[in-house]
Amino acid sequence: MSKNYDVKDLGLAREGKLKIEWSDKQMQVLSIIKDRFKKEKPLKGLTIAACLHVTSETANLLITLKAGGATVVTNASNPLSTQDSVAASLVKDYDIPCFAIKGEDSKTYYKHLNTVLDYKPQITMDDGGDLIHLLHTKRQNQLKDILGSSEETTTGVIRLKAMEKDKALKVPVIAVNDSDTKHLFDNRYGTGQSTIDGVIRATNVLLAGKNVVIAGYGWCSKGIAMRAKGMGSNVIVTEVDYVKALEAAMDGFRVMKMIEAVKIGDIFISATGDKHVIGIAEMRLMKDGAIIANSGHFDIEIDMASLEKVKNKKRTIRNSLDEYLMPNGKKLYVLGEGRLVNLAAAEGHPAEVMDMSFANQALAAEYFVKNKGKLENKVYVLPKALDQKVARLKLKAMDISIDTLTPEQKIYLSSWDEGTK
Amino acid sequence: MSKNYDVKDLGLAREGKLKIEWSDKQMQVLSIIKDRFKKEKPLKGLTIAACLHVTSETANLLITLKAGGATVVTNASNPLSTQDSVAASLVKDYDIPCFAIKGEDSKTYYKHLNTVLDYKPQITMDDGGDLIHLLHTKRQNQLKDILGSSEETTTGVIRLKAMEKDKALKVPVIAVNDSDTKHLFDNRYGTGQSTIDGVIRATNVLLAGKNVVIAGYGWCSKGIAMRAKGMGSNVIVTEVDYVKALEAAMDGFRVMKMIEAVKIGDIFISATGDKHVIGIAEMRLMKDGAIIANSGHFDIEIDMASLEKVKNKKRTIRNSLDEYLMPNGKKLYVLGEGRLVNLAAAEGHPAEVMDMSFANQALAAEYFVKNKGKLENKVYVLPKALDQKVARLKLKAMDISIDTLTPEQKIYLSSWDEGTK
Amino acid sequence: MSKNYDVKDLGLAREGKLKIEWSDKQMQVLSIIKDRFKKEKPLKGLTIAACLHVTSETANLLITLKAGGATVVTNASNPLSTQDSVAASLVKDYDIPCFAIKGEDSKTYYKHLNTVLDYKPQITMDDGGDLIHLLHTKRQNQLKDILGSSEETTTGVIRLKAMEKDKALKVPVIAVNDSDTKHLFDNRYGTGQSTIDGVIRATNVLLAGKNVVIAGYGWCSKGIAMRAKGMGSNVIVTEVDYVKALEAAMDGFRVMKMIEAVKIGDIFISATGDKHVIGIAEMRLMKDGAIIANSGHFDIEIDMASLEKVKNKKRTIRNSLDEYLMPNGKKLYVLGEGRLVNLAAAEGHPAEVMDMSFANQALAAEYFVKNKGKLENKVYVLPKALDQKVARLKLKAMDISIDTLTPEQKIYLSSWDEGTK
Amino acid sequence: MSKNYDVKDLGLAREGKLKIEWSDKQMQVLSIIKDRFKKEKPLKGLTIAACLHVTSETANLLITLKAGGATVVTNASNPLSTQDSVAASLVKDYDIPCFAIKGEDSKTYYKHLNTVLDYKPQITMDDGGDLIHLLHTKRQNQLKDILGSSEETTTGVIRLKAMEKDKALKVPVIAVNDSDTKHLFDNRYGTGQSTIDGVIRATNVLLAGKNVVIAGYGWCSKGIAMRAKGMGSNVIVTEVDYVKALEAAMDGFRVMKMIEAVKIGDIFISATGDKHVIGIAEMRLMKDGAIIANSGHFDIEIDMASLEKVKNKKRTIRNSLDEYLMPNGKKLYVLGEGRLVNLAAAEGHPAEVMDMSFANQALAAEYFVKNKGKLENKVYVLPKALDQKVARLKLKAMDISIDTLTPEQKIYLSSWDEGTK
Repeated sequence: MSKNYDVKDLGLAREGKLKIEWSDKQMQVLSIIKDRFKKEKPLKGLTIAACLHVTSETANLLITLKAGGATVVTNASNPLSTQDSVAASLVKDYDIPCFAIKGEDSKTYYKHLNTVLDYKPQITMDDGGDLIHLLHTKRQNQLKDILGSSEETTTGVIRLKAMEKDKALKVPVIAVNDSDTKHLFDNRYGTGQSTIDGVIRATNVLLAGKNVVIAGYGWCSKGIAMRAKGMGSNVIVTEVDYVKALEAAMDGFRVMKMIEAVKIGDIFISATGDKHVIGIAEMRLMKDGAIIANSGHFDIEIDMASLEKVKNKKRTIRNSLDEYLMPNGKKLYVLGEGRLVNLAAAEGHPAEVMDMSFANQALAAEYFVKNKGKLENKVYVLPKALDQKVARLKLKAMDISIDTLTPEQKIYLSSWDEGTK
Repeated sequence: MSKNYDVKDLGLAREGKLKIEWSDKQMQVLSIIKDRFKKEKPLKGLTIAACLHVTSETANLLITLKAGGATVVTNASNPLSTQDSVAASLVKDYDIPCFAIKGEDSKTYYKHLNTVLDYKPQITMDDGGDLIHLLHTKRQNQLKDILGSSEETTTGVIRLKAMEKDKALKVPVIAVNDSDTKHLFDNRYGTGQSTIDGVIRATNVLLAGKNVVIAGYGWCSKGIAMRAKGMGSNVIVTEVDYVKALEAAMDGFRVMKMIEAVKIGDIFISATGDKHVIGIAEMRLMKDGAIIANSGHFDIEIDMASLEKVKNKKRTIRNSLDEYLMPNGKKLYVLGEGRLVNLAAAEGHPAEVMDMSFANQALAAEYFVKNKGKLENKVYVLPKALDQKVARLKLKAMDISIDTLTPEQKIYLSSWDEGTK
Repeated sequence: MSKNYDVKDLGLAREGKLKIEWSDKQMQVLSIIKDRFKKEKPLKGLTIAACLHVTSETANLLITLKAGGATVVTNASNPLSTQDSVAASLVKDYDIPCFAIKGEDSKTYYKHLNTVLDYKPQITMDDGGDLIHLLHTKRQNQLKDILGSSEETTTGVIRLKAMEKDKALKVPVIAVNDSDTKHLFDNRYGTGQSTIDGVIRATNVLLAGKNVVIAGYGWCSKGIAMRAKGMGSNVIVTEVDYVKALEAAMDGFRVMKMIEAVKIGDIFISATGDKHVIGIAEMRLMKDGAIIANSGHFDIEIDMASLEKVKNKKRTIRNSLDEYLMPNGKKLYVLGEGRLVNLAAAEGHPAEVMDMSFANQALAAEYFVKNKGKLENKVYVLPKALDQKVARLKLKAMDISIDTLTPEQKIYLSSWDEGTK
Repeated sequence: MSKNYDVKDLGLAREGKLKIEWSDKQMQVLSIIKDRFKKEKPLKGLTIAACLHVTSETANLLITLKAGGATVVTNASNPLSTQDSVAASLVKDYDIPCFAIKGEDSKTYYKHLNTVLDYKPQITMDDGGDLIHLLHTKRQNQLKDILGSSEETTTGVIRLKAMEKDKALKVPVIAVNDSDTKHLFDNRYGTGQSTIDGVIRATNVLLAGKNVVIAGYGWCSKGIAMRAKGMGSNVIVTEVDYVKALEAAMDGFRVMKMIEAVKIGDIFISATGDKHVIGIAEMRLMKDGAIIANSGHFDIEIDMASLEKVKNKKRTIRNSLDEYLMPNGKKLYVLGEGRLVNLAAAEGHPAEVMDMSFANQALAAEYFVKNKGKLENKVYVLPKALDQKVARLKLKAMDISIDTLTPEQKIYLSSWDEGTK
């Protein structure tokens, strides 16, 4: 058992181990990679610091990395997402140092960030870019040790590309988020299902017949819109990008400005990667009983600070459901304190999508080793061949066989001299 | 506070009261009826025994009946569906005798059934027909006191119609289930959402891309099929009725025999009202990892008895998720011990649909009083005008206005002499 | 070749025969009945007058009736729905007297109605009730000859029930429309697809992203709403029935008054069975470019008379597409002169659904013979066993096998003494 | 009136003009560009040869280019897609030389290709790359005159990228297809709707309940799958790309090898851009009555040559519907001779999507002029700002307003130092 840890209660380890094993059963791609890593030990001698949501799926990634020969240490990328039982099991059953307590305060959160960096990692993994940010601001002396860093989420990638553009990026980065087998699946099917799950667990309201307003129409918000529609809601989309807005309209959704949507919406879900998408002016116009959730990475999509300031009264109704009495007498309901609703009120992405995302993470770590010294301080995407590989393994796990090109078809596709007969 | 009760812990009352209030906010039709009942006291002097799922929505029905002047007493219609906090609050905050403990054993269950009948009710309410059954078998002397009994669910109505056909029915019954504003909504939108919710809470598996086999294509199973499709599953339907099977096929679902479906299904949900729909022969053919749930009223749709007998090993993985190691080495996963998955693993129907179902229940109680002495020992449906009324109030709560027929249109619809010009 | 006929051009018979054969290939239930009729001749000696849409599907019904031994004569139930090539082939290839010309004027239409009644039928078949209406008004002396009359459509059934209520009905009627295998399929899947087909053929506009307003949420309009949604439209429903309106809202559609919908709708489709659902006041408020179609049986759902009166100018843009310049300068586009758009602008219901509807028609004719003298002058529905039979044959044609109840299950379903264990 | 033309019948011009005007009413983005071109004349002095489907939508593009000052000449990019009335109107009403006759044979097709190049164009527009191919093979001396060439379709772009890779490309090319406002809309919503339309017009079969097999899961095939599902079909997808196959599975479709799908499919639609996707081995295994259509650009996705060879008998049943009697006694039905079904059996993409595609074409022509001398012989995509512009104009035409970023939000999105609080 690892001696270094900060978890809620090691006594929860048994429950955590069952969770980890249940996830493992759904993560068949990662499982195949783990078996190969066990034999090949491609990460031997390395220390990897992973600042990810501490869930049973992440546990299986960490176990895979360890199987590959690495020393692995982890903390939580979000104060609300930690599964304390998994954290306990990582320490007790898998001997992986873990620093994560559900609901930890901001000070503890930053202490944990620093603790995992004290392990002197050569590879870091982020979900939102907090490790990389800390390395570039207060721990710049460690930057030289870093082979590479991988980033899980859209929000983090936006941040890293801004750094790259400013020439502020000092390590090679792989945007795992930008692999097709990650963002086409995790962001859409994973966020879609788990966000709806979070809303239902927190409120138990009926989605059928509700006006559900979704801010954004990127991959995550597309997934949420698709699922809300699938549950019988009347979906309204808000956007700032003309092409995405048009896509939403053509997909049959109402598209309008947020300031109009707030007047008719029953449930609001923001997933834009942007700030104050639901501001206090919008909240003042909402109907009595309106429900507000955030499914974007950071807790700033809803302007919670202003809401706390203007409210007359606040009380907690259920887990992850707070009632705010507004000065106009209406009651608004905020889920999970405005943090990622699928983690705060549900269990995050299902293991099946994390399987692919984390297969990419594991392959990214291996890629840093294989390409040591060859990578610039840029934001990279994993080669398409690895995407095809991950998808192939997943299809196999689903017992699906597909066609392959015939030699004749391959020639046809690469030629340009066969036309209308 | 009621002195007569059997609940888990009165200390849970505060949590229960918040739940009841939260449901009340979504139950605007019942709320309007409650306000009228308060003034009119149509149930004055009556005792009503309600054997329903003891949830926050039911609490609001009971509170409404009490507001109408009745003495109300309740027990649970299903051992697994009780919300202990709600039971506590009913006793402590609303002075309603309640006999229900989540997970109570069969003996306690039957004791509670008898206890509520000891209150000498004039009206009984069932969800599955257990009170009415007890009255007709072991407590026949009380039958003469009964003004009428209302039944909430399809399964119970099937049972009552069998009794009516056999001339065994000795009291007037209202099949609340057969009101349009009940079965078209509760069974479809309510069961649909809450069953999916139960499956996700118990397993956290991704529904997208899964083969979900749904037994039955009645209102409940239609709702489940619709929602599973809405979550991205590939839905397979099994049926014994040719018309319903054809409807499922035309709705784009695969339709096949269960014995074929078991070979390819990832998740099985039975909602037929029938027995042993998923038998042990079927379970032996399932894939490793198959997940099995019941959404029918009684816990006999899945042949749990045989499964317990043939299994090599059993362990609990998560709440409501049991792993059965089969003699063939495969692992099957049963949710909520084969009981109603939306109650065992989730919170039952959302308040918005129970609002309409329970509005019908409240109106049924009033109907028994108003029609005292006029009803035969038959299974009745509430008049269509009450259905229209419930729907009208619900639309109002949703802020939706609709058209009304013009005098000219009314004449046209009742005439038969205007044709192709 | 029949000597009595009034069709456009017998030279079209070859094209018509190919159409009839193509439909026959999709009408496998009717085909099985035809084979049985050939052997059993249940309709021997009878004359049947069929006032139906003269399409290739109807042709196969008529051929089936003739195979059963009947003398068959037909005219069109709608001036715009006749397929002239089919009419020609009926006369030339199948020796069935036919009186129907696409676009025939009102006078010819009524002449044809009278002509088929001149054949002294014992059974009549209606689609909208025109034969039965004529028999009850101007040809009452023939009523005594009638064994029974069957009615195909909702509109006709509404009319007949009004007659029954007024004690004005003088013959037994079978509401074929009310068979499950008719209205659950033909009205929903048939009208749904063919209405969308009619709108697209007439306009070639993109449905994705359009606001499509559907008047009514009965079986037909439900089908249209489902398909419009399936094509990417944002669907708005208008209703006068509270339960149906609520159902539409819970299905995720916007529900509002027509007078509100006209301001935002791009395409309007009425399918209510009622009159002036889209009146001139509504049309005056529509956007420039609005498209208006009727999918109800009679051409009075849109107030065409008033539109013709107030318009500044009218011109035909394409087949079935007329442009009306309104006094306010806006242009409105009406499809198929406000008549049934799926017949005027497309080919009516696909053969697969007519297969079941017409199987019911054929069985209704047989039912009149089998129950000669036993039927009252009421509106009957065919026995459920015939519904199951039709559905069973259809499933067989689709190569679908379903489960059957085990003896144990049969006992369970008919018993009422097995409950929660 | 142009003196140089080869069209079917100038007498059809009136019908064609109505069609062109009707399309113009749906093409509001192109209309705005046309108004600007009229004033600015950006294409003055240029000759543009457009080898596109000669439809009413294309007519509006050509009219726009002419309004911009260009001399415009056109021929058909597909022998079956020409609308003869539109061709006539182009010549007679708009003085645009046109060389296109529906059903022209291969020799005439190539003659027309050469004719338009005889006009010595500086800009060419292709839909499938036939002009560019001819320029690079038999008319290389004209290459030096070419400012640039734009390409409309995926198939053409694949061809051009193969040429670019082989260093065989001798002119700058803009892949209009690769603009977001083209392929995300035209390929998906346009091909989706019009392919379904083509299948229905050619067959009038019911799509609900049918097994529809779609080859490919690119943008076009995604659109077809989405719409087939929307019509109630049970959709099966075949693919050769693992990521796309996985996406199809996660979207709830069955995914399998074509050789398996042929055994259960009722309708087959190929849209892959590849050759012999449905080969003769596959056709031999199909069910009696199977319907086969191609929605890919070239008529080689179905191996028609082999089918013609092995068939026992062939006859035409309806427009665009040929019956093939196979040696095994089964009948297969091929739509539109295996050519693009949405053009052969329907009217091609609706004007609303062509509006955006052709807005991009018009802007591409302007881009060649503005960037004269600056472009290499490569395949370019139009700048994203033009995409946003086209989408913005389209949303305006749809009366939709969207949000804009606040200054605070802009800063946030470009910064990287704000994280979890």
